Amino acid sequence: MLLNKDQKLLFIGDSITDCERVKPEGEGLFGALGKGYVSFIDGLLQSVYPELGIRVVNKGISGNTVRDLKKRWQEDVLNQNPDWLAIMIGTNDVWRQYDMPFIKDQHVYLDEYEDTLRKLIKETKSFVNGIVLMTPFYLESNEHDAMRRTMDQYGAVVRRIAEEMDCIFIDTQAAFNVVLEQLYPATLAWDRVHPSVAGHMVLARAFLKKIGFDWNKM
Amino acid sequence: MLLNKDQKLLFIGDSITDCERVKPEGEGLFGALGKGYVSFIDGLLQSVYPELGIRVVNKGISGNTVRDLKKRWQEDVLNQNPDWLAIMIGTNDVWRQYDMPFIKDQHVYLDEYEDTLRKLIKETKSFVNGIVLMTPFYLESNEHDAMRRTMDQYGAVVRRIAEEMDCIFIDTQAAFNVVLEQLYPATLAWDRVHPSVAGHMVLARAFLKKIGFDWNKM
Amino acid sequence: MLLNKDQKLLFIGDSITDCERVKPEGEGLFGALGKGYVSFIDGLLQSVYPELGIRVVNKGISGNTVRDLKKRWQEDVLNQNPDWLAIMIGTNDVWRQYDMPFIKDQHVYLDEYEDTLRKLIKETKSFVNGIVLMTPFYLESNEHDAMRRTMDQYGAVVRRIAEEMDCIFIDTQAAFNVVLEQLYPATLAWDRVHPSVAGHMVLARAFLKKIGFDWNKM
Amino acid sequence: MLLNKDQKLLFIGDSITDCERVKPEGEGLFGALGKGYVSFIDGLLQSVYPELGIRVVNKGISGNTVRDLKKRWQEDVLNQNPDWLAIMIGTNDVWRQYDMPFIKDQHVYLDEYEDTLRKLIKETKSFVNGIVLMTPFYLESNEHDAMRRTMDQYGAVVRRIAEEMDCIFIDTQAAFNVVLEQLYPATLAWDRVHPSVAGHMVLARAFLKKIGFDWNKM
Amino acid sequence: MLLNKDQKLLFIGDSITDCERVKPEGEGLFGALGKGYVSFIDGLLQSVYPELGIRVVNKGISGNTVRDLKKRWQEDVLNQNPDWLAIMIGTNDVWRQYDMPFIKDQHVYLDEYEDTLRKLIKETKSFVNGIVLMTPFYLESNEHDAMRRTMDQYGAVVRRIAEEMDCIFIDTQAAFNVVLEQLYPATLAWDRVHPSVAGHMVLARAFLKKIGFDWNKM
Amino acid sequence: MLLNKDQKLLFIGDSITDCERVKPEGEGLFGALGKGYVSFIDGLLQSVYPELGIRVVNKGISGNTVRDLKKRWQEDVLNQNPDWLAIMIGTNDVWRQYDMPFIKDQHVYLDEYEDTLRKLIKETKSFVNGIVLMTPFYLESNEHDAMRRTMDQYGAVVRRIAEEMDCIFIDTQAAFNVVLEQLYPATLAWDRVHPSVAGHMVLARAFLKKIGFDWNKM
Amino acid sequence: MLLNKDQKLLFIGDSITDCERVKPEGEGLFGALGKGYVSFIDGLLQSVYPELGIRVVNKGISGNTVRDLKKRWQEDVLNQNPDWLAIMIGTNDVWRQYDMPFIKDQHVYLDEYEDTLRKLIKETKSFVNGIVLMTPFYLESNEHDAMRRTMDQYGAVVRRIAEEMDCIFIDTQAAFNVVLEQLYPATLAWDRVHPSVAGHMVLARAFLKKIGFDWNKM
Amino acid sequence: MLLNKDQKLLFIGDSITDCERVKPEGEGLFGALGKGYVSFIDGLLQSVYPELGIRVVNKGISGNTVRDLKKRWQEDVLNQNPDWLAIMIGTNDVWRQYDMPFIKDQHVYLDEYEDTLRKLIKETKSFVNGIVLMTPFYLESNEHDAMRRTMDQYGAVVRRIAEEMDCIFIDTQAAFNVVLEQLYPATLAWDRVHPSVAGHMVLARAFLKKIGFDWNKM
Repeated sequence: MLLNKDQKLLFIGDSITDCERVKPEGEGLFGALGKGYVSFIDGLLQSVYPELGIRVVNKGISGNTVRDLKKRWQEDVLNQNPDWLAIMIGTNDVWRQYDMPFIKDQHVYLDEYEDTLRKLIKETKSFVNGIVLMTPFYLESNEHDAMRRTMDQYGAVVRRIAEEMDCIFIDTQAAFNVVLEQLYPATLAWDRVHPSVAGHMVLARAFLKKIGFDWNKM
Repeated sequence: MLLNKDQKLLFIGDSITDCERVKPEGEGLFGALGKGYVSFIDGLLQSVYPELGIRVVNKGISGNTVRDLKKRWQEDVLNQNPDWLAIMIGTNDVWRQYDMPFIKDQHVYLDEYEDTLRKLIKETKSFVNGIVLMTPFYLESNEHDAMRRTMDQYGAVVRRIAEEMDCIFIDTQAAFNVVLEQLYPATLAWDRVHPSVAGHMVLARAFLKKIGFDWNKM
Repeated sequence: MLLNKDQKLLFIGDSITDCERVKPEGEGLFGALGKGYVSFIDGLLQSVYPELGIRVVNKGISGNTVRDLKKRWQEDVLNQNPDWLAIMIGTNDVWRQYDMPFIKDQHVYLDEYEDTLRKLIKETKSFVNGIVLMTPFYLESNEHDAMRRTMDQYGAVVRRIAEEMDCIFIDTQAAFNVVLEQLYPATLAWDRVHPSVAGHMVLARAFLKKIGFDWNKM
Repeated sequence: MLLNKDQKLLFIGDSITDCERVKPEGEGLFGALGKGYVSFIDGLLQSVYPELGIRVVNKGISGNTVRDLKKRWQEDVLNQNPDWLAIMIGTNDVWRQYDMPFIKDQHVYLDEYEDTLRKLIKETKSFVNGIVLMTPFYLESNEHDAMRRTMDQYGAVVRRIAEEMDCIFIDTQAAFNVVLEQLYPATLAWDRVHPSVAGHMVLARAFLKKIGFDWNKM
Repeated sequence: MLLNKDQKLLFIGDSITDCERVKPEGEGLFGALGKGYVSFIDGLLQSVYPELGIRVVNKGISGNTVRDLKKRWQEDVLNQNPDWLAIMIGTNDVWRQYDMPFIKDQHVYLDEYEDTLRKLIKETKSFVNGIVLMTPFYLESNEHDAMRRTMDQYGAVVRRIAEEMDCIFIDTQAAFNVVLEQLYPATLAWDRVHPSVAGHMVLARAFLKKIGFDWNKM
Repeated sequence: MLLNKDQKLLFIGDSITDCERVKPEGEGLFGALGKGYVSFIDGLLQSVYPELGIRVVNKGISGNTVRDLKKRWQEDVLNQNPDWLAIMIGTNDVWRQYDMPFIKDQHVYLDEYEDTLRKLIKETKSFVNGIVLMTPFYLESNEHDAMRRTMDQYGAVVRRIAEEMDCIFIDTQAAFNVVLEQLYPATLAWDRVHPSVAGHMVLARAFLKKIGFDWNKM
Repeated sequence: MLLNKDQKLLFIGDSITDCERVKPEGEGLFGALGKGYVSFIDGLLQSVYPELGIRVVNKGISGNTVRDLKKRWQEDVLNQNPDWLAIMIGTNDVWRQYDMPFIKDQHVYLDEYEDTLRKLIKETKSFVNGIVLMTPFYLESNEHDAMRRTMDQYGAVVRRIAEEMDCIFIDTQAAFNVVLEQLYPATLAWDRVHPSVAGHMVLARAFLKKIGFDWNKM
Repeated sequence: MLLNKDQKLLFIGDSITDCERVKPEGEGLFGALGKGYVSFIDGLLQSVYPELGIRVVNKGISGNTVRDLKKRWQEDVLNQNPDWLAIMIGTNDVWRQYDMPFIKDQHVYLDEYEDTLRKLIKETKSFVNGIVLMTPFYLESNEHDAMRRTMDQYGAVVRRIAEEMDCIFIDTQAAFNVVLEQLYPATLAWDRVHPSVAGHMVLARAFLKKIGFDWNKM
């Protein structure tokens, strides 16, 4: 597995990462990691690889776009000195264009998204062992849906940056698409954005498989 | 995997099973299955085997002993017509002997525990495809600890009944013991009884492995 | 306009009708009619036709299907002696098939829906001046979407019954479709089901136009 | 209609405008515009003219007099860069003279009211496409009632300023008077000041008719 | 003074009497008598005539009409065995005709009011030392106002019954009218019905003067 | 009566004055004056002398001693420009010596009490029409009780200062003593300090009689 | 010590016994015994005599008089099968005569008190090992105070019954009197009835000394 | 006894000392000292030695380690000018190593613990009459348990410093061990750290015996 003994793994993102985590710490006892995929990843790492002592930190904040990440990057990422960094951002960058179309100053368009994300990764790359880039996703199976189409463009940007910067890339949309062949989106998320426990398990599995986690280890 | 399309899997037990599930239904949207191992099993089944449409129901109630299960067995188990039934009971049967030693009418001693559990399974066996019996556990690594020793006796009863009745048997204490070699009990449970997310993942994995769940299926 | 002096107009339905109305009365001061289309219709009738003294009653209950309406029909409709009755039901009959696909006993399939609705109208027809049948709707512009397709089938049943029974028919889906040509569904409803204020205005206007309400009357 | 594509329409006023709007933004999803006439205007604009994408902002604050508006004018009006501005103020300027007659420093008398309102409009006129001036009103049908008489004087000031400054003028008192011929004031407002839903519909209709809104457009 | 040592004085009525009294007792320590005129009368009786030990009981219930009093007369009046009974009812009988004009089954018209009130007094007269009849009132100084005119008719009924039945009569409207010559109604009541502390003092004084209370006694 | 048209009467003191008044204003609608003697005085002044328009302000704060009054004198008294000032302080200065005898830095002994009170009145005298000095009191009828004896000493200081400075003097202890001849202290106050409604009426009457209030005026 | 291994000691009484105990059980973990002398006795017994396993049960209910005890005696005492019974009742029997003197049906006078208490003990005596009778008390050091004098009479009744019936007698008033020589009553109880922690320690010590508890045992 | 008239005794520590004390004062009426051993010590001192007037102050704060004490030492200890100081710290210094083993920056290891504690006592010694050092404890009877072993090392440091600095030393672990011979740890603490009432009585007795408190004094 990619993670080594005593390393710190930090997640940053929006409400899908946040999931009611304890603020500002984002770690500790009693549900401090929230109720979503970050907590599930931590629980599985701790129960299957207890000897590694991986320290998981959740710095997701609901409603964040990449523009917000930029503002708190120094404090919430660099100052934390993580060994591994996982980023999943873009949902709100896209969603605001579709649920509040008239309030344009809250939209983060593709150019700003790409520039900002690239810049953040560039300035962080050398301080960490590795970066995991997770695409944003939209739980809509119709590829021609307007918002799904936009989300796919943002996902493509994530893939491009991952390749350029040699990051670990996770296509969360692809992971969900397999499940969406069997289940209608409403089963996985009441608003096509915030996943159910099953949806968060999709994210956790996608992440863990990529970093070489072995379910059958013990 | 043991479970087949459109089957119903019902869990019954105490607070470790309950975990703030919605009452009285024990199923539905928005965290209806609680925050523990039942919810994790459901989330993993739904995300990896969406085509099976397994219906998971949680009928755990905090503080229950096997004496309480007996009282609500008709309504909460038989009337539900599950295809599969999973039982984890015994924590409070033992715990009350150690945290409220002077209030003896709340203690369920080994004989009553064994008789009641056997009787419940006997009268249910023929109505279901299969029964999974999970031992109660105590997150204490010292085998000579008084309460751990008692809990092990209750676990031995569960194993014996599982063999007699041809149930699927899960030794949760054994599953935890492997992790307790690496972690002090306080990391997994503030009171050595109610597990953290990591502890519930130990339970979920122990269950899923036994029923043939394939993490790498898709 | 169809409504005459001192008549009582009763709405029945699910959460889209309910909208936090006061229970059990469904009428009175201080927001007793809820925050949705029923309240808007009442407000517009009272402000434009104050001389008519139309009494509006809201008997919507969140989560209801046509199966639930049947159970409370005597008390909430017949005992109320309305002059006009408006029904909008079916959302949950369909939705449960898509957001809780494995819990089949909560699904109300097309046959039961049609039979029940027809029966209710048949037994009520002679006691009222007129019945307004509003289709259920789904705020999804893709006609090939599975749930939209199902919802359209339920809407078609409503249209058929309206014709058979000589009811006033309102195609709410059609009313929304015009708006959906301009706005993405997320603008009108966070879950594609519960409309924003704008969405409720679509419903109110569709209703009022059908009953001959004159916006420019005074 | 007066409003054009992508324009911003800002309302400012007292509790009748405020109506529990989200603070400080005064716009957004989930009832951010409050429960009164501003929300109804927004809902009707969005549902009938979705192609225009009008952005409505509510900056009402409960208890405000024109003296309070002056203090927050820079931040809540000028900094917002609205294309259209609607003002309804004066209720509390008058009311305090009648419900707290002994606390004179909270009374805003006619001279101060007129001077302040004129000054605010003068300094704003050139930055916006147009200003809508709505009179304050009092839901009392007796013209000789002392407070109604005072309120009418404040309304006359609004009319005079509207003419001087070439603003769109809305006589809300006149709009209510037509309804008060049919309904006793208590039906429209428990305190003769804060309108019911029907009362807010009177305000919304008066506004919309003035700006050329077409109810039957689609 | 009319009241004698160790007598019980019971008040019954609507919200003006109720004023958050403790239910169901209507007597006791810590504000059990509510915050209105009943509490003020009790406080003045106890502080000026402590040697009499008058027991005051408050059986007002918000929203009540004379129709409601009739339903609870046996339990709340006759079973209580009061020595003196004070009744102030009629506000809601009239108000509902003006604030909910379309919901006619909640209106108690003049005939029903008179018949019911007379009947209640007739069946009680012989069991008590005396009955005090207080008119309902409306804090509107314009005698030609529709609701004020109706309230005056109900007040006239109270006066007539008091004369017929030899009850002590208190014209609360008259008591308020003197004050309304100086103060606008909004100073005494936000809704012209529920009095401020000053308004309740008007009621308390009108009552106490009638029963011979001597402010300067000690 | 001493008070003239349009004058402002300000009360300052501790919890007995405070009584849940609205902070920081201490005046306004809806119980802003609290639930005690200040509110009763205001209610009686307004109902009997409405033509005077007396403005009553309550600046009592729970737990205050004269040491606390000194700290907020500029803001809460001088800046308020009252025409009349009423002061009742000393309860806590004494009480803390008896309920928290070991925490001596919270005791305000007689010397400090006298010096501080005299100084406050000296610096205020010339700015107001008159000052009313009310003694603190203790609802204990045994004059030899230790705390009652101390309270009487503080009351004597108040009397002495009133004479020196030509203030209106109210002996509240004497007013209560008359009632205590008939009633046990527990009837008037659960802790012998915070009066019931009847106890607050004793205070209100003592005050009103002193300023020439005429109960029978109208 | 009087108590033997595995015995059950039940306390019954009013609010001084109750002290927020868990209802209806009156025993268990996490403060189930309340915050007063019962909890302190239990804590000291368990920490000094852990080998005895004494089971303490608290059946105090706030506001109770001996009349109330009688109503629940079968359920709360006899059905509980205690080995030892401790009774402290009478505070409210007396207090109501002094804080609500006019509501005479809530007073329990001396005769009723004595008869009822004697009867309860008579019917219980043979079922228990022993009964502890604790006098009610009043934290007033002046013996000539009216309520203290009455309370002393009730205490004398308790002493008499204890002698007649051969019960263990505890004079709580005497225990407090020693402390009241040093401390003013307000230090021990805000209302002279409900003791502070120190006051409850006085009760706990008085009880424990009587039953032979040895503070220095270990 | 060691304590003399009018002295101040200050306790500082973590949650075991804190126990919901009032913040920031840590003294006063109505449970200001919390619900644990500090409150019990105060209650026993006040009830048995009322003539001494000992002032007890509680400055415990939940979650504190010796590192936290250092930060607030000036304000919470030195500025308070206590005559006697009691310190019980170390629980969290150790616990964090066992319940959050991966978050190492929250661990306070033995060296830092010893250095900090010694330094705090050194700088305080000369300002107080005496210092009481209480060991931290762990309610686990197995001496070979990892966390118990570590806690014993911290306890040994406390003993060493007490000897060096001539402080009064209390071995709380030893006091608990006697009880743990009879009771399983879960009876005394749900998490082996936060004692029940009985556990707090163990602490209070250990403290009081050491300072010469005489249970039988009066």
